Amino acid sequence: MQRVARRPPPDLAPARKSSLGEFGRIARFFAPLAASMPGAAGLTDDCATLQVPPGRMLVAKTDTIVDTVHLIGDEPADLVARKALRVNLSDLAAKGAVPLAYMLSLSLPTSIDDAWVELFAQGLARDQAEFGLGLIGGDSDRTPGPFVVTVAMFGTVASTTIPRRGDARAGDDIYVSGTIGDGALGLLALRGQLGDLPPAALGHLIDRYRLPQPRLKAGQTLAGTVHAAMDISDGLVGDLGHICKHSGLGASIQWENVPLSPAARQALATDPALRDTVLGGGDDYELLFTAPPDAAPRIQTVAREKDLPLTRIGAMETGHGVRVIDAQGRDVTPAVAGYAHA
Amino acid sequence: MQRVARRPPPDLAPARKSSLGEFGRIARFFAPLAASMPGAAGLTDDCATLQVPPGRMLVAKTDTIVDTVHLIGDEPADLVARKALRVNLSDLAAKGAVPLAYMLSLSLPTSIDDAWVELFAQGLARDQAEFGLGLIGGDSDRTPGPFVVTVAMFGTVASTTIPRRGDARAGDDIYVSGTIGDGALGLLALRGQLGDLPPAALGHLIDRYRLPQPRLKAGQTLAGTVHAAMDISDGLVGDLGHICKHSGLGASIQWENVPLSPAARQALATDPALRDTVLGGGDDYELLFTAPPDAAPRIQTVAREKDLPLTRIGAMETGHGVRVIDAQGRDVTPAVAGYAHA
Repeated sequence: MQRVARRPPPDLAPARKSSLGEFGRIARFFAPLAASMPGAAGLTDDCATLQVPPGRMLVAKTDTIVDTVHLIGDEPADLVARKALRVNLSDLAAKGAVPLAYMLSLSLPTSIDDAWVELFAQGLARDQAEFGLGLIGGDSDRTPGPFVVTVAMFGTVASTTIPRRGDARAGDDIYVSGTIGDGALGLLALRGQLGDLPPAALGHLIDRYRLPQPRLKAGQTLAGTVHAAMDISDGLVGDLGHICKHSGLGASIQWENVPLSPAARQALATDPALRDTVLGGGDDYELLFTAPPDAAPRIQTVAREKDLPLTRIGAMETGHGVRVIDAQGRDVTPAVAGYAHA
Repeated sequence: MQRVARRPPPDLAPARKSSLGEFGRIARFFAPLAASMPGAAGLTDDCATLQVPPGRMLVAKTDTIVDTVHLIGDEPADLVARKALRVNLSDLAAKGAVPLAYMLSLSLPTSIDDAWVELFAQGLARDQAEFGLGLIGGDSDRTPGPFVVTVAMFGTVASTTIPRRGDARAGDDIYVSGTIGDGALGLLALRGQLGDLPPAALGHLIDRYRLPQPRLKAGQTLAGTVHAAMDISDGLVGDLGHICKHSGLGASIQWENVPLSPAARQALATDPALRDTVLGGGDDYELLFTAPPDAAPRIQTVAREKDLPLTRIGAMETGHGVRVIDAQGRDVTPAVAGYAHA
């Protein structure tokens, strides 16, 4: 995920802003989120059980949100919760998985009060309903640092395999879902580093940064059609570079084919150098996949059915690395190809 | 888990003490830990798959270690790793589960260098071999706060149910494995708050704090015999209180029956008030379970087979709450019954 500016660590004052305590918070705010999951035992036990439906295989993913690293730092708690779920759901989407359940680990500074936790749980509830999820377990601890939210997400697939980064073949078309670059531009907007744009355009970009849209339905429908698949979290060029590396191939993409939102086009009109942000910035949470050319009609059928653009942006080829070519045939590959967390 | 004294947040200097970067660290130190798990795809993909053997049910648990909260702060990295696995394995042990795999989420300050990560991975490797585990996925991020290690642990059981906290029945005997109080006394020793003891005794207590021993074999063998079961992480009295609450019962335990190590006996001889620490302090990671009286012979057979003391310390009864009675019939229940994290 994208790095954002640091701020000082939160208040280390020992005042405990919880009248409920850990067990009270769990019972009040989190146990209702586990009501649909028999294996969660109402969050009153040490372990959860998870029944994998017959004929399906479990898919698991964990991802973490650290305040001030993955967040600007002023996000409302419900949005934090929903982002923590969605960055994981986006990975499941690329693998064609159907969401099932999740575990939640919270490390919270004492400056976080019960009202924050309540709003956080409301965000979880909202996305549980939207994505058909249940909470099955977790833990809650204090930290003298910024809050850390780790989600372990579970889904299932019908097949015994899932599309891997290394499954691309030479000659495959490369596709992305939705539009690219909005999240990275939204982060710039939140940091006051984007030029003058109409409020509606700014709002669109910021929304795209703050609330990823996991492409679950499209991913599930495409599962039998694609070769390699992943979601774009570290930037289009960087993530496509992972597919290249693990498939032992190269990739060429055409800049003019990369799908952009009207807001992103407006931003690029004010500053063409933002192209590097669009291509390399991350926080897209769109699908990135490769498929054989003869799958094109099927892919466009899925796009229509799911009301989600699926755009061919280039092709896999022998060689290695990612090249971005503009309409004039110039190599416009950004220098920073993806962002490494560590 | 037990709270320890805070120290200031770690170095926030931006110096990046990694020449490898996130992907390099994963490839070098963590990918070998996933070699035995086909569903991990060598940690080169976004999601893992997990095959649950036919006829078995998945059991899942997540627990987090925050530096300076769950650790004194000077633990070597391999011990941190092993503790992070073992606090989760201890929960699986109480449910009779066989360990299978885990995911790992690391949030690390930039002050942590590659050598720390290498030693951390060596600790993981050692306990993977000891407990038959494989790494299937995870993520790594930076944090301006103390390091946070979250493990999502998976195991399987043969039955369709596991012993829950709420499964105790009136008249059940109450048992613990091993010895009680060593971990809490070891923490006091590390903080310099324990009186003069022979070095061997201090060493025993500190080891018990630093490296929990999950009682997996005993827990697996007892699974069909016990009613309620959990591991003791928040203190004997507090955790037995959870069994009481969720079973709608009370419990009486006899202080003189609580099994103590020679080192704990020595500590109590120097300061009898440490009884409250033994009963309420936590970090035992021993099994706590209830079973009908006629299971006593079977339980002692398991104790002999597994070379692990299983000691009857009291009985479940109607009513509510935990009472600790000494040999003179006095109520010596500690005032602080367990420790709430939040």
